[in-house]
Amino acid sequence: MKTDQISNAIQLDSSGRLIHLLGLEGLSKKHLTNILDVADSLIDSNGKLKKSKVLDNMSIANLFFEPSTRTRNTFEIAAKRTSANVINVDLKNSATKKNESIIDTMRTLEAMQIDMFVIRHKQNGLPHMVAESIGNVSILNAGDGINAHPTQALLDMLSIRQHKKDFKKLSVAIVGDIVHSRVAHSDIQALKTLGTTDIRLIAPPPLQYDAEKCVAINCYDDIEKGIEDCDVVMILRLQKERMLEAEIPNEQEYFDRYGLSTGRLALAKPDAIVMHPGPINRGVEIESSVADGPNSIILKQVTNGIAVRMAVMEILARKD
Amino acid sequence: MKTDQISNAIQLDSSGRLIHLLGLEGLSKKHLTNILDVADSLIDSNGKLKKSKVLDNMSIANLFFEPSTRTRNTFEIAAKRTSANVINVDLKNSATKKNESIIDTMRTLEAMQIDMFVIRHKQNGLPHMVAESIGNVSILNAGDGINAHPTQALLDMLSIRQHKKDFKKLSVAIVGDIVHSRVAHSDIQALKTLGTTDIRLIAPPPLQYDAEKCVAINCYDDIEKGIEDCDVVMILRLQKERMLEAEIPNEQEYFDRYGLSTGRLALAKPDAIVMHPGPINRGVEIESSVADGPNSIILKQVTNGIAVRMAVMEILARKD
Amino acid sequence: MKTDQISNAIQLDSSGRLIHLLGLEGLSKKHLTNILDVADSLIDSNGKLKKSKVLDNMSIANLFFEPSTRTRNTFEIAAKRTSANVINVDLKNSATKKNESIIDTMRTLEAMQIDMFVIRHKQNGLPHMVAESIGNVSILNAGDGINAHPTQALLDMLSIRQHKKDFKKLSVAIVGDIVHSRVAHSDIQALKTLGTTDIRLIAPPPLQYDAEKCVAINCYDDIEKGIEDCDVVMILRLQKERMLEAEIPNEQEYFDRYGLSTGRLALAKPDAIVMHPGPINRGVEIESSVADGPNSIILKQVTNGIAVRMAVMEILARKD
Repeated sequence: MKTDQISNAIQLDSSGRLIHLLGLEGLSKKHLTNILDVADSLIDSNGKLKKSKVLDNMSIANLFFEPSTRTRNTFEIAAKRTSANVINVDLKNSATKKNESIIDTMRTLEAMQIDMFVIRHKQNGLPHMVAESIGNVSILNAGDGINAHPTQALLDMLSIRQHKKDFKKLSVAIVGDIVHSRVAHSDIQALKTLGTTDIRLIAPPPLQYDAEKCVAINCYDDIEKGIEDCDVVMILRLQKERMLEAEIPNEQEYFDRYGLSTGRLALAKPDAIVMHPGPINRGVEIESSVADGPNSIILKQVTNGIAVRMAVMEILARKD
Repeated sequence: MKTDQISNAIQLDSSGRLIHLLGLEGLSKKHLTNILDVADSLIDSNGKLKKSKVLDNMSIANLFFEPSTRTRNTFEIAAKRTSANVINVDLKNSATKKNESIIDTMRTLEAMQIDMFVIRHKQNGLPHMVAESIGNVSILNAGDGINAHPTQALLDMLSIRQHKKDFKKLSVAIVGDIVHSRVAHSDIQALKTLGTTDIRLIAPPPLQYDAEKCVAINCYDDIEKGIEDCDVVMILRLQKERMLEAEIPNEQEYFDRYGLSTGRLALAKPDAIVMHPGPINRGVEIESSVADGPNSIILKQVTNGIAVRMAVMEILARKD
Repeated sequence: MKTDQISNAIQLDSSGRLIHLLGLEGLSKKHLTNILDVADSLIDSNGKLKKSKVLDNMSIANLFFEPSTRTRNTFEIAAKRTSANVINVDLKNSATKKNESIIDTMRTLEAMQIDMFVIRHKQNGLPHMVAESIGNVSILNAGDGINAHPTQALLDMLSIRQHKKDFKKLSVAIVGDIVHSRVAHSDIQALKTLGTTDIRLIAPPPLQYDAEKCVAINCYDDIEKGIEDCDVVMILRLQKERMLEAEIPNEQEYFDRYGLSTGRLALAKPDAIVMHPGPINRGVEIESSVADGPNSIILKQVTNGIAVRMAVMEILARKD
């Protein structure tokens, strides 16, 4: 499915309450702020994550059709911190091999009375299709194709809000493979909803949005122009196969043209924060001195990722 | 081991209490009814599974020598709903590779003070051999070769009992690969123990019981004769390799000859229930309109599968 | 790294309290005795392991870079018995594949606020390097290269202490591939710290310590001389590839020359105990009649392995 054909309407019930988290289009500033507030409340004054009993009677299934140990772990840790039971469904050996359709698998898991599915799939809109097909399970999109990765965007917003006061006054640069990035897509949506108007997308032309989309947003090929006076620099993870698509023959050349070095970071505001969804490719999209430097909040993002996922689970669990 | 050489005697202690669940031969109607009653008590009036603390201090190991995500998940979910600790032992990398015999592995897990083993193995009677070799662990047979699959039969009986009053008055048809099916074997045993006399087995001749066994039970080649006026139609899952054995060249031909279509279901009683252990092959052994139709209780079987496994775990845990 | 260059200094804080368990060099008799005492207190008078709530709010990650289902299971079971959350990180699909360095992976898991890492790695000193690189996580070495396997040695000491009164008066023989064995290394260290002076190492010459090391310890090629009048015989597990290195063409020849048979065991003291870290190769390093005989405490070692790991986790958790 093309990403602009995917509707998130089903994620709100008739009173506008969140019953699935499929994507950020269609969520109001109030929805986002509520999730961030709950997430903040799960972190104590020393930065330690709390443990709650909110999902004590609930079961959550991790359904990762694309392998991603890291993201799966964050959902598993978040679920266990809310005291939920967690089932990691091994989809390599599962019935989908035996010709059972994905929907039959989902209906079967629903009949096992799992309360929430965390779904990652390479197909755009797959979590939406599941949400439409089953009735009693909350769906949490953990990344679908190039469409959306809403919890990543929410943890990014939480991390920005902890360091910067007003989303409306921010200049935010996003650097990397914009066009294929579900993270960029969800981050742009979240920033718009929260009021940020100066969003700058920096990418090699083959990895940049098309001219039509770039009318409404600031597109750059030159990273040094793009990050000038920015408050926030969000670096995307580079997939090797994308370098070739962008006619960049090797990692050094990518770093030379688009990598975030100390020198380039000096063009942003002195208190600019540097973000990355991880895992980082040191020396490719970011210099180690920047990744480990005082402006980097990369590891704080990881902690916030647990808090945001706990918050979303708790909010979804409250529906009844 | 041949299935008729396997004894379940060890599953009862000297007072007749259940200490393992290896198979249904040797269990009385009282044993089965007790398990079904406990299972029913674990489902509330809205059909929701309860959560118990009965196994709060116990550990259960899932030992699946045959891969089966689905059945393993049901045991894991059931165990967690009783508050037990669950260990999924990865037998691919385990010591059985290193020449340690299976019994040594089992004794080692026993020494780790695991309280229950859930075992699936392609060898007939393997769970029985384990039960004989170790002293302090309850064995739960999750399917051994073509011998038995007792929890599947128990969930089937629970599903039937929820819809039909008296097992004695029922006509039950089982359709598919009878001779290789541990599910069929255990279902037939359970039905007999509960008093059903009209059991009809429908299969292509190469997948049917031999003439000797068919003396005591009703064997059919023709599905339309077999399901006439039935109260219950149990469809078995078709394994592709069995089609060839039955000289059926493709799925369409199997469906034409043995598949449960709306037309054929009309030959059974109007309130007949349709069952399948899942995952279903739509358009092969069952038509989608039947699988999803009003007579189907396939998804209810899944829910009952959790309740029955919780019930068996609780009953086994009470031995002391 | 060479094993004699590895320092465990970081495992104690400035007051001498244990904050990591990396190896046994540098730990006092008091440290070891404390761990054994806590472990003993976790076993009731019937030999049953207790369940504690000590780590109720903690999360433990199993990070096994070398596959070992058995040891991983013992840590998982131990952690769950202390009521901790356990995450088994699948390192096959993890970010280490994506060029993220191990340290970045560890820092990320630290940022997820995991409290303890259980690490097994083929590289000597890897757990030490991790302990030096991260600040807020306790590291538990589950085996690094040929360097150390401290929890195995501790469970061995607990098993000896349950059967023999005074470590100072014991004669202990260790048989097998001494030079490549992290188990032997840690056992020797533990025995020395606890006061045992008569330690005898029995190995084929290519698998024996070098002459320099054998000055301070008793090295034997001949098992019959080595185990004479011993109180304890510890058999190591034989790796097939080591037989060739020792110019032993097959398992029978290894057994003939170094295997523990009933006859050879008769050379030790009548109440000698026989130990093995498991899984055993029956008929290679040990005869079945010995492994299953009255002197064997092999399965008791397994139970003690859970108790010792629970004890270490509880002691590490108390740091603050």
